[in-house]
Amino acid sequence: MEMIRLRERVAFQDEKPARHRLMGTPRCQADLYCLRPGQRQASHVHADQDKLYLGVEGVGRIRVGEEERQLEPGTLVLAPAGVEHGLTNDAGAPLVVLVVVVDRA
Amino acid sequence: MEMIRLRERVAFQDEKPARHRLMGTPRCQADLYCLRPGQRQASHVHADQDKLYLGVEGVGRIRVGEEERQLEPGTLVLAPAGVEHGLTNDAGAPLVVLVVVVDRA
Repeated sequence: MEMIRLRERVAFQDEKPARHRLMGTPRCQADLYCLRPGQRQASHVHADQDKLYLGVEGVGRIRVGEEERQLEPGTLVLAPAGVEHGLTNDAGAPLVVLVVVVDRA
Repeated sequence: MEMIRLRERVAFQDEKPARHRLMGTPRCQADLYCLRPGQRQASHVHADQDKLYLGVEGVGRIRVGEEERQLEPGTLVLAPAGVEHGLTNDAGAPLVVLVVVVDRA
Protein backbone atom coordinates (compact mmCIF):
# COMPACT_ATOMS: atom_id res chain seq x y z
CA MET A 1 0.00 0.00 0.00
CA GLU A 2 1.28 3.44 -0.86
CA MET A 3 0.90 5.40 2.40
CA ILE A 4 2.64 8.64 3.33
CA ARG A 5 2.47 10.75 6.47
CA LEU A 6 2.54 14.32 5.20
CA ARG A 7 4.46 15.65 8.20
CA GLU A 8 7.34 13.29 7.42
CA ARG A 9 7.77 14.86 4.00
CA VAL A 10 7.85 18.51 5.04
CA ALA A 11 11.13 20.10 3.94
CA PHE A 12 11.96 23.61 2.74
CA GLN A 13 14.46 25.13 0.35
CA ASP A 14 16.12 28.52 0.80
CA GLU A 15 16.07 29.63 -2.82
CA LYS A 16 12.51 28.71 -3.89
CA PRO A 17 9.37 26.84 -2.82
CA ALA A 18 9.98 23.11 -2.38
CA ARG A 19 7.71 20.72 -4.23
CA HIS A 20 7.85 17.09 -3.14
CA ARG A 21 6.23 14.40 -5.24
CA LEU A 22 4.34 12.05 -2.92
CA MET A 23 2.51 9.52 -5.10
CA GLY A 24 0.60 9.25 -8.33
CA THR A 25 -0.87 7.28 -11.20
CA PRO A 26 -0.87 7.95 -14.95
CA ARG A 27 -3.79 10.38 -14.37
CA CYS A 28 -2.99 12.17 -11.13
CA GLN A 29 -0.21 13.21 -8.84
CA ALA A 30 -0.08 14.31 -5.22
CA ASP A 31 2.61 16.83 -4.27
CA LEU A 32 3.53 18.60 -1.04
CA TYR A 33 4.42 22.29 -1.47
CA CYS A 34 6.54 23.82 1.29
CA LEU A 35 6.99 27.60 1.22
CA ARG A 36 9.07 29.64 3.62
CA PRO A 37 7.75 33.11 4.51
CA GLY A 38 8.02 35.34 1.44
CA GLN A 39 8.24 32.51 -1.09
CA ARG A 40 5.70 32.23 -3.88
CA GLN A 41 4.60 30.10 -6.78
CA ALA A 42 3.99 32.68 -9.48
CA SER A 43 0.57 32.67 -11.14
CA HIS A 44 0.40 30.37 -14.14
CA VAL A 45 -2.08 28.38 -16.23
CA HIS A 46 -2.29 24.70 -17.19
CA ALA A 47 -4.52 24.14 -20.18
CA ASP A 48 -5.10 20.47 -19.41
CA GLN A 49 -4.66 19.98 -15.66
CA ASP A 50 -7.02 20.56 -12.77
CA LYS A 51 -5.46 21.29 -9.37
CA LEU A 52 -6.82 20.81 -5.88
CA TYR A 53 -5.07 22.64 -3.03
CA LEU A 54 -5.50 21.66 0.62
CA GLY A 55 -3.92 23.81 3.33
CA VAL A 56 -1.96 21.61 5.77
CA GLU A 57 0.10 23.97 7.92
CA GLY A 58 0.38 27.75 8.13
CA VAL A 59 -1.58 30.30 6.12
CA GLY A 60 -0.97 31.85 2.72
CA ARG A 61 -2.63 33.67 -0.15
CA ILE A 62 -4.06 31.66 -3.01
CA ARG A 63 -5.09 33.13 -6.32
CA VAL A 64 -7.49 31.49 -8.77
CA GLY A 65 -8.52 33.60 -11.73
CA GLU A 66 -8.96 37.21 -10.60
CA GLU A 67 -9.65 36.27 -7.00
CA GLU A 68 -7.24 36.02 -4.06
CA ARG A 69 -8.15 34.47 -0.71
CA GLN A 70 -6.50 33.16 2.43
CA LEU A 71 -5.61 29.47 2.42
CA GLU A 72 -5.71 27.91 5.89
CA PRO A 73 -5.23 24.38 7.22
CA GLY A 74 -8.23 22.26 6.28
CA THR A 75 -9.30 24.55 3.43
CA LEU A 76 -9.74 23.02 -0.02
CA VAL A 77 -9.50 25.08 -3.23
CA LEU A 78 -10.05 24.11 -6.85
CA ALA A 79 -8.02 25.60 -9.72
CA PRO A 80 -9.66 24.16 -12.85
CA ALA A 81 -7.75 23.67 -16.08
CA GLY A 82 -7.34 26.90 -18.04
CA VAL A 83 -7.64 29.20 -15.01
CA GLU A 84 -4.64 31.16 -13.76
CA HIS A 85 -3.56 30.25 -10.22
CA GLY A 86 -0.75 30.95 -7.80
CA LEU A 87 0.27 30.67 -4.15
CA THR A 88 2.16 33.07 -1.87
CA ASN A 89 3.37 32.71 1.68
CA ASP A 90 2.82 36.27 2.87
CA ALA A 91 2.74 35.25 6.53
CA GLY A 92 5.51 34.89 9.08
CA ALA A 93 5.40 31.10 9.42
CA PRO A 94 6.05 28.17 7.09
CA LEU A 95 3.29 27.18 4.67
CA VAL A 96 2.60 23.55 3.74
CA VAL A 97 0.00 22.65 1.11
CA LEU A 98 -1.10 19.34 -0.37
CA VAL A 99 -1.67 19.66 -4.13
CA VAL A 100 -3.40 17.06 -6.29
CA VAL A 101 -2.85 17.53 -10.01
CA VAL A 102 -5.27 15.78 -12.35
CA ASP A 103 -4.45 15.36 -16.01
CA ARG A 104 -7.35 16.08 -18.32
CA ALA A 105 -5.59 14.99 -21.48
CA MET B 1 -13.13 30.65 -6.40
CA GLU B 2 -14.37 27.31 -5.18
CA MET B 3 -13.16 27.16 -1.56
CA ILE B 4 -14.44 24.87 1.20
CA ARG B 5 -13.42 24.54 4.83
CA LEU B 6 -13.60 20.80 5.49
CA ARG B 7 -14.71 21.22 9.10
CA GLU B 8 -17.82 23.07 7.96
CA ARG B 9 -18.90 20.07 5.91
CA VAL B 10 -18.54 17.38 8.58
CA ALA B 11 -21.89 15.65 9.15
CA PHE B 12 -22.76 12.07 10.02
CA GLN B 13 -25.63 9.73 9.28
CA ASP B 14 -26.94 7.08 11.67
CA GLU B 15 -27.64 4.37 9.13
CA LYS B 16 -24.48 4.43 6.99
CA PRO B 17 -21.30 6.40 6.28
CA ALA B 18 -22.03 9.91 5.00
CA ARG B 19 -20.36 10.97 1.75
CA HIS B 20 -20.49 14.68 0.95
CA ARG B 21 -19.54 15.93 -2.47
CA LEU B 22 -17.31 18.98 -2.08
CA MET B 23 -16.17 20.03 -5.55
CA GLY B 24 -15.06 18.60 -8.84
CA THR B 25 -14.40 18.85 -12.55
CA PRO B 26 -15.22 16.46 -15.40
CA ARG B 27 -12.12 14.45 -14.41
CA CYS B 28 -12.04 14.49 -10.63
CA GLN B 29 -14.16 14.86 -7.56
CA ALA B 30 -13.40 15.64 -3.93
CA ASP B 31 -15.65 14.05 -1.30
CA LEU B 32 -15.72 14.11 2.49
CA TYR B 33 -16.46 10.75 4.10
CA CYS B 34 -17.81 10.86 7.67
CA LEU B 35 -18.03 7.54 9.53
CA ARG B 36 -19.40 7.03 13.00
CA PRO B 37 -17.71 4.37 15.14
CA GLY B 38 -18.54 0.95 13.68
CA GLN B 39 -19.48 2.22 10.21
CA ARG B 40 -17.66 0.97 7.14
CA GLN B 41 -17.37 1.37 3.42
CA ALA B 42 -17.23 -2.24 2.23
CA SER B 43 -14.30 -3.22 0.06
CA HIS B 44 -14.94 -2.69 -3.62
CA VAL B 45 -13.13 -2.09 -6.91
CA HIS B 46 -13.35 0.66 -9.55
CA ALA B 47 -11.90 -0.43 -12.86
CA ASP B 48 -11.36 3.11 -14.10
CA GLN B 49 -10.98 5.37 -11.07
CA ASP B 50 -8.00 6.12 -8.87
CA LYS B 51 -8.70 7.20 -5.29
CA LEU B 52 -6.62 9.24 -2.89
CA TYR B 53 -7.56 9.12 0.81
CA LEU B 54 -6.38 11.70 3.34
CA GLY B 55 -7.17 11.22 7.00
CA VAL B 56 -8.65 14.44 8.44
CA GLU B 57 -10.02 13.53 11.89
CA GLY B 58 -10.04 10.35 13.95
CA VAL B 59 -8.43 7.04 13.04
CA GLY B 60 -9.71 4.09 11.03
CA ARG B 61 -8.62 1.00 9.11
CA ILE B 62 -8.00 1.31 5.40
CA ARG B 63 -7.67 -1.65 3.08
CA VAL B 64 -5.98 -1.53 -0.33
CA GLY B 65 -5.53 -4.87 -2.05
CA GLU B 66 -4.64 -7.50 0.55
CA GLU B 67 -3.21 -4.99 2.99
CA GLU B 68 -4.89 -3.20 5.91
CA ARG B 69 -3.34 -0.30 7.80
CA GLN B 70 -4.32 2.47 10.18
CA LEU B 71 -5.39 5.75 8.59
CA GLU B 72 -4.61 8.77 10.75
CA PRO B 73 -4.98 12.52 10.27
CA GLY B 74 -2.40 13.74 7.78
CA THR B 75 -1.87 10.31 6.24
CA LEU B 76 -2.32 9.96 2.48
CA VAL B 77 -3.14 6.62 0.81
CA LEU B 78 -3.50 5.68 -2.85
CA ALA B 79 -6.03 3.13 -4.09
CA PRO B 80 -5.22 2.77 -7.81
CA ALA B 81 -7.85 1.75 -10.34
CA GLY B 82 -8.49 -1.97 -10.35
CA VAL B 83 -7.39 -2.55 -6.76
CA GLU B 84 -9.90 -3.49 -4.06
CA HIS B 85 -10.21 -0.92 -1.26
CA GLY B 86 -12.35 -0.18 1.76
CA LEU B 87 -12.53 1.87 4.94
CA THR B 88 -13.71 1.00 8.45
CA ASN B 89 -14.11 3.09 11.56
CA ASP B 90 -13.10 0.50 14.16
CA ALA B 91 -12.25 3.17 16.74
CA GLY B 92 -14.40 4.88 19.36
CA ALA B 93 -14.42 8.34 17.80
CA PRO B 94 -15.76 9.83 14.55
CA LEU B 95 -13.68 9.36 11.41
CA VAL B 96 -13.43 12.04 8.72
CA VAL B 97 -11.56 11.40 5.47
CA LEU B 98 -11.02 13.52 2.36
CA VAL B 99 -11.29 11.38 -0.78
CA VAL B 100 -10.26 12.52 -4.26
CA VAL B 101 -11.60 10.33 -7.06
CA VAL B 102 -9.88 10.60 -10.42
CA ASP B 103 -11.53 9.26 -13.54
CA ARG B 104 -9.19 7.33 -15.80
CA ALA B 105 -11.65 6.87 -18.61
